[in-house]
Amino acid sequence: MLDYFKVPKEDCININENDLRKVTESIFLKYGLSESNAQLSTDVLLHADLRGIETHGVSNMLRNYVQMYREGKSNPNPTWKIVKESYTTATVDGDGGLGLMTAAHSMDLAIEKAEKYGMGAVAIKNSGHLGAAGYFAMMALPHDMIGWCMTAGGKGMLPTFGAEPQIGTNPIAIAVPSNKKYPFVFDAAMTSIAGNKIGLLERLNKPILPGWVANPDGSPDMKGGSKAELKIGVTRNQLPLGSTRELGSHKGYGLAVAVDILCGVLSGAIGFSSLAVDRRAHFVAAYKIDGFNSISKFKEDMDEMLQGLMNTKPAPGHERVLYPGLEEGEVENFRRKEGIPLHKEVIDWYMKICSELDIPFKYN
Amino acid sequence: MLDYFKVPKEDCININENDLRKVTESIFLKYGLSESNAQLSTDVLLHADLRGIETHGVSNMLRNYVQMYREGKSNPNPTWKIVKESYTTATVDGDGGLGLMTAAHSMDLAIEKAEKYGMGAVAIKNSGHLGAAGYFAMMALPHDMIGWCMTAGGKGMLPTFGAEPQIGTNPIAIAVPSNKKYPFVFDAAMTSIAGNKIGLLERLNKPILPGWVANPDGSPDMKGGSKAELKIGVTRNQLPLGSTRELGSHKGYGLAVAVDILCGVLSGAIGFSSLAVDRRAHFVAAYKIDGFNSISKFKEDMDEMLQGLMNTKPAPGHERVLYPGLEEGEVENFRRKEGIPLHKEVIDWYMKICSELDIPFKYN
Repeated sequence: MLDYFKVPKEDCININENDLRKVTESIFLKYGLSESNAQLSTDVLLHADLRGIETHGVSNMLRNYVQMYREGKSNPNPTWKIVKESYTTATVDGDGGLGLMTAAHSMDLAIEKAEKYGMGAVAIKNSGHLGAAGYFAMMALPHDMIGWCMTAGGKGMLPTFGAEPQIGTNPIAIAVPSNKKYPFVFDAAMTSIAGNKIGLLERLNKPILPGWVANPDGSPDMKGGSKAELKIGVTRNQLPLGSTRELGSHKGYGLAVAVDILCGVLSGAIGFSSLAVDRRAHFVAAYKIDGFNSISKFKEDMDEMLQGLMNTKPAPGHERVLYPGLEEGEVENFRRKEGIPLHKEVIDWYMKICSELDIPFKYN
Repeated sequence: MLDYFKVPKEDCININENDLRKVTESIFLKYGLSESNAQLSTDVLLHADLRGIETHGVSNMLRNYVQMYREGKSNPNPTWKIVKESYTTATVDGDGGLGLMTAAHSMDLAIEKAEKYGMGAVAIKNSGHLGAAGYFAMMALPHDMIGWCMTAGGKGMLPTFGAEPQIGTNPIAIAVPSNKKYPFVFDAAMTSIAGNKIGLLERLNKPILPGWVANPDGSPDMKGGSKAELKIGVTRNQLPLGSTRELGSHKGYGLAVAVDILCGVLSGAIGFSSLAVDRRAHFVAAYKIDGFNSISKFKEDMDEMLQGLMNTKPAPGHERVLYPGLEEGEVENFRRKEGIPLHKEVIDWYMKICSELDIPFKYN
């Protein structure tokens, strides 16, 4: 993660993974989720917290999910069903549940199809917020498959040259197994900055950097410096990856439209004009490596490639060159032992809701 | 295309599509390509010229291909073969031919597999330069499939934080059928600017813009203004899409590594360290829409989405909002009637080589 978003250590308290898991599951159970659904939802959230993806962990997302359950806006125990299918593909109706659950079941289906035929892909409609896309892509790894996950919905991004937001931030995740190295896991929004990072800025009281959002008239704001409170998503919308046409914003925009197509149009659930904030569409896929190459050779070549990238001579001011998934793998390794640092404000939220719901919460 | 790269009309002469096709085929035939291989290679090049993708048409690429055939560096009539296969996937050895031919045959195979099982994907090793990736993705369209094509090779891009180039510019193409609208066709390098555009700059005698290349020490050059002659690829390397870490260059870099994996590592042909300039690897895939959704509903929804994007209110200074494939569709429509504008310097090259090879060339 960009240092810019790092929460100062002195503002945090480390919570043991299992303690955080237990209390989070208990909260979901209070809102009517079955035991397996509560466990699965918690696992998706904790995966993000463990890997340092604070934007999609308990601090940023859990209170949103709780709010949706409170208001009856999300089905706590969805009965997902296949609405169209071929040997390798399917469209799933998520029955209005969060993507945390519907995408996991759909990825199981994609993996099952890939196991038999070499590839599998599932488009998911009538679903809610996904959580961290990388979680579902990584489900392919123990099966020696390459995993994909994408999610669409909301209107957070301006098209290149556009003055109105038309598409979501539309992240793409790709996970690839390796041998001894931490696996390659790419997971990124197709805006220049993830939508949830804007939320983090408020907590950190930091200004917006150049190239992240547009001016109110739609032109790229290449000066930055505005306060995070500036109603992002109301008068100031996010720019595609690339920020300006000269820097390649049509590429971020084009990839985001492709994500909308694979998730929203392919699943047939939601027309372009009705991609609403609390209804999302997803796409997951699995490619079996054994259908292309020997698994052991592939994994050895992956190790060689990832090590080669790490061995790149760094530019001035940088200690080392990373690859997607390296830092996340290291952080996960560390946090499983040392606990997950939560901002004190998040601990307060946990204390409050646990008191309301009559859940015991001890954190050290 | 960015206006910056538009060749001034007064420097061009319009050539009829069929005349250009005929003379280009004749040149390929002289270098030993079979009639079908000469036709296919020409079709891939003319596709780019017709759609306004000058970087991958005859002007930028044909002389490179001719040079390779002259030096015996490329197999004019490759015998491609399947080296590993499942119901839906395969790895193909391209027998040292240009991607113009090997990727087309591989996409035929992916489409055949998708027709039977819902999806198909082929990784291709031991191949040469691809040509315009969009051509192969678009092969899926008449079959009511979504087409993918990627290509890896060369070392043109610096990793984020890196001072040495490690990966190619690694374009991704995605083509999606629609009903009445020009189809969505995304085709873009994962650098902030396509490698071949650097070549165009020399012909146009224009400076490099900020965010396109790095300084000699690897730090992003956000000032621009250097001359195109500045040995790009020797002391000055290309930046990933996003240009700087703050603007999201780790996303362009990460996607480029994913392309290297799907093309190079999955096909097992070439280790990371040996991805050389004149040996490339590709990846093509086809997803059958009928395996997810009704084809007619999908195409109607695509039209609605594409029209919705076109209807976006433009930002100041812009006449309209585009989608990937819109301008290319319009240009193709126009050029099929009015001819393909070639820079006088390109006409001179044609005159010269036709004289050498004893090929008649009349252009109006």
